[in-house]
Amino acid sequence: MHELQPNLQANLAIDGHRLWQSLMQMAEIGATPAGGVCRLALTDEDKAGRDLFIDWCRKAGCSIRIDQMGNIFARRAGLDDTLPPIMMGSHLDTVPTGGKFDGALGVIAGVEILRTLEDAQYRTRAPLEVAVWTNEEGSRFAPVMISSGVFAGAIPIETAKASTDRNGLTLGGELARIGYAGDAPASGAAVSAFFELHIEQGPILEREGATIGVVTAVQGLRWYEVRIKGQEAHAGTTPLEARRDALLGAAELIVAANRIGRAAGPAGRTTAGYIEASPNGRNVVTGEVLLCLDFRHPDDTALLEMEHALEAELEVLRKRHGLTCDLKRVTHAASVAFDETCVTLVRDASSGLGFTSRDMVSGAAHDSVYLARVAPTAMIFVPCRDGLSHNEAEYASEADCAAGCSVLLAAVLAFDKELAQRCEPSL
Amino acid sequence: MHELQPNLQANLAIDGHRLWQSLMQMAEIGATPAGGVCRLALTDEDKAGRDLFIDWCRKAGCSIRIDQMGNIFARRAGLDDTLPPIMMGSHLDTVPTGGKFDGALGVIAGVEILRTLEDAQYRTRAPLEVAVWTNEEGSRFAPVMISSGVFAGAIPIETAKASTDRNGLTLGGELARIGYAGDAPASGAAVSAFFELHIEQGPILEREGATIGVVTAVQGLRWYEVRIKGQEAHAGTTPLEARRDALLGAAELIVAANRIGRAAGPAGRTTAGYIEASPNGRNVVTGEVLLCLDFRHPDDTALLEMEHALEAELEVLRKRHGLTCDLKRVTHAASVAFDETCVTLVRDASSGLGFTSRDMVSGAAHDSVYLARVAPTAMIFVPCRDGLSHNEAEYASEADCAAGCSVLLAAVLAFDKELAQRCEPSL
Repeated sequence: MHELQPNLQANLAIDGHRLWQSLMQMAEIGATPAGGVCRLALTDEDKAGRDLFIDWCRKAGCSIRIDQMGNIFARRAGLDDTLPPIMMGSHLDTVPTGGKFDGALGVIAGVEILRTLEDAQYRTRAPLEVAVWTNEEGSRFAPVMISSGVFAGAIPIETAKASTDRNGLTLGGELARIGYAGDAPASGAAVSAFFELHIEQGPILEREGATIGVVTAVQGLRWYEVRIKGQEAHAGTTPLEARRDALLGAAELIVAANRIGRAAGPAGRTTAGYIEASPNGRNVVTGEVLLCLDFRHPDDTALLEMEHALEAELEVLRKRHGLTCDLKRVTHAASVAFDETCVTLVRDASSGLGFTSRDMVSGAAHDSVYLARVAPTAMIFVPCRDGLSHNEAEYASEADCAAGCSVLLAAVLAFDKELAQRCEPSL
Repeated sequence: MHELQPNLQANLAIDGHRLWQSLMQMAEIGATPAGGVCRLALTDEDKAGRDLFIDWCRKAGCSIRIDQMGNIFARRAGLDDTLPPIMMGSHLDTVPTGGKFDGALGVIAGVEILRTLEDAQYRTRAPLEVAVWTNEEGSRFAPVMISSGVFAGAIPIETAKASTDRNGLTLGGELARIGYAGDAPASGAAVSAFFELHIEQGPILEREGATIGVVTAVQGLRWYEVRIKGQEAHAGTTPLEARRDALLGAAELIVAANRIGRAAGPAGRTTAGYIEASPNGRNVVTGEVLLCLDFRHPDDTALLEMEHALEAELEVLRKRHGLTCDLKRVTHAASVAFDETCVTLVRDASSGLGFTSRDMVSGAAHDSVYLARVAPTAMIFVPCRDGLSHNEAEYASEADCAAGCSVLLAAVLAFDKELAQRCEPSL
C-alpha cells in the first residue's frame, strides 16, 4: 500500500483504451441502428447494463449494495472504513434516442478508477463508492433525477416508486421486475464528497479548445406550460382580421421567447420544445395550443426577469389576437453552486495534469444537483462534439474521456488526502 | 298542374318550420354533447342519415337512384322526363366536430322543395333531382369532394374506392358495409343545372346584414407541406446562437404566412393549421417540423404571388437559422367562376323575393366546384352566426334557412322555365 502523492503516480495512470472499450461495450446494450443508445430506465436493456456494471465492479474487488430505489453502489474499502465514502458516479439510463456518453461516462470512469486502484493495490483512506442512479433522464418515469432526489431526501420514496410510465407501469413494479429493488435505505447515508464526470452536452469546451470543464454551478431552470385558446374557424372563409388563431399566437410567443433568451445575455437559454395544436387540421384555424417552454439562467434574478418578460408577451398576445393565455409554472429549480473546496480540487487536478480547462456553469441538471444538498459536490465536463447530446450522434473522443477520468481520479485522491490529514493531523 | 309564374305562387311557399324540424331531426344523428354533429362519411351514423333522407324523399313521391360511389339521387319526374335533371343537393357527412348546417342544409332544403312541389302538385318541365354527395368533407377519406369529383370525371373511381381511412378501411369496402354501393354509373350523367344552398361558413353576410349570398365563384386554393429540418440539441446547454431550431423556424414561417395573407388584400387567406414537431420534448431543441399551409385567393395571379412570397420566406429561414426547408405542393385548385346564367337566376330570385343579397366569392370549396365542370352551376349562401363553421357551435337561423330554401326553389323554377322556353319556343 502506498501513501498518496501530490501528483498521480505512474502506476495510477488511467488506461484510456480500457475505459474506451468499456464505454463501447456498454453502448452495445440498447444500441440503435443510427449509432445511438436507447436504454430507458428499468427496461430489460437497463437491467443488462446494470448487470454488466456489477460484473465489472466485482472483478475489480468491490462489494455491491443496492438500495430501495435501485441505486447501485460499488464499494472499494478504505484504510478507515468507518469514514463516509468518497463517491463518484452518474447514471446508465438514456433518453429514447440518446448517445453513448451521457451518464455512462461518469459511471464507467468510476469503474476504470476502481480497476486502476486495484491494479496498483492502492488503498485510499476513505472507502470509495461508484454510484449508478436510477432513472436520471426522466424519459420513462417523471420527474428527472428521481432516485438521487430520494437519496437527498428531496423526493419521498413512496412518491417515486408510484411514478408511472406511459403504459401505467410503476417505477416500483419495474424495479422488482428486473430484480433491482434492493434492501438498503434509499436516503440518509453519509457521503464525504461526490464527484461526477459528464459529457458537456454543449459546444463551449469544443469551441474554446479546452479539454476540461470545471463546473462551478448548475443554472436555474423554470418550466412553463402555456395554454393558448382562440377560436376554431374555417381556413377558407374566415378573413384574417376576424380570426383568433391560437397557433399564430403560439408562433409569436415562440419567437418572443427566443428574443427574451437573447436579451438575457450569452448565459440565457429559452426553448420552446413541445407544441400540441388542436384540432390540427390543415384547413382549420387552430382553436387551442399547448406550448411548453424551458427557461434557464445561472443567475436566479435574471431568470425571474425572463419570466416577467414572458408574462408581458402573453399580455401582448391577449390584446393583439383576443386569445386567452394561461401560464402554468410546472418546475422551478434554483441555480446550484457546487462546493468550493471540491471545485478547487477539480481545477487543480486538471492543471496539475496539464490539461487546459475553463470554469463553466452547467446548462443541464444532473444527479449532482441533489447530491450537492447532502455532500460537498463538484462536476467535471469533457468536450462534446458539435455540442450534440440527447442525440444518437453524441460523441466524446477517447483522449478526452481519458483526460476527464484522470482528473476525476486526481480530484478524488486529493480529497481523500485532505480527509486523511483532517483525521490524522499529527502525521 | 300549373305553369311557372315569374314569382312564386302562394302554394309554392316554403314551409320554413318544416324545413327547420327536418334539419334538427337530421342533426340528432351523430349529435355531440356540445351541440354539434359527428357524422363521418360511411359510418353507421352516415348510413342512418342516408336512410332518413331516402325515407323523406320516398314520402315526397320520389324515386331513388344510388350510384357506384354511393351518391344518392332522389328524382321527381318532370313533364318531359327525357330532359337532363335540374339538380340540387350537397352532402350529409360532417367533420369530426361539425355543426348542424354544413352540407345538411343544402340536402334538406332540396327535400323541402320536393315536398312543397308535391303538396302543390306542381310539375316542372325537367325532372328534378336532389343529390347527396358521398364524403365531401374528406375528414375520413382523402381527398375532399371525392364523389362529386368522380361524378365530374376528375377522379378515377378505382382511385376513389381504394382511398383508406386511418384504420386502413377502404371507401369501397365501407360503402358496401353500410349497403350504399349502388349500381348506377358514377360518372357521365347529363345534368341541366346544379344549384347548391350552403351555410356561408364565414362572417361576411352577418357582418353586412345581408340574407342571401349570391356566389359568383370559388377562390383558388394551394396547399403546402413544409418540412423544416434543423438539429436536435439540449435545451439547457446549447447557446441560442449555436442552435438550428426547427420549431423556431416554423414559428417565424407561421408569422410570415400571416403577413403574406394580409399583404394580399382583404380576399387573401393564409392559414397554418397543422404542425408536428419532433422529438417534441420540452427540454430538447426541435430537430424537425412538418407544417401544413393553406393559401387561398379568388385571383389566381395573386395566389401565385403569395406562393412566391412564401418561397422567399423559406430562403430567409434557410439563411438565418441554417435550416433546410422543403416545400411540397400537395393541392392546387384554380379559382372557379360559376355559370353566369345560373348566378343571375339566383340574384334575381333573391331580389324578387325581397331579400337583401350580395355577390360573393366562396372561401371554401364545395361539390359545386366539380359540378361546374359538367353543368351550369351556382351556389346560394345564408348567414353563419359569428362566421363559425367546422365547429359544433355552427348556427344559421330558421328564417335565413327558409330564405335560402325559397331562393333555391325560385332559381330552380326560373331555370326550368327557361329550359321549357328553349324546348318549346313556339309556346
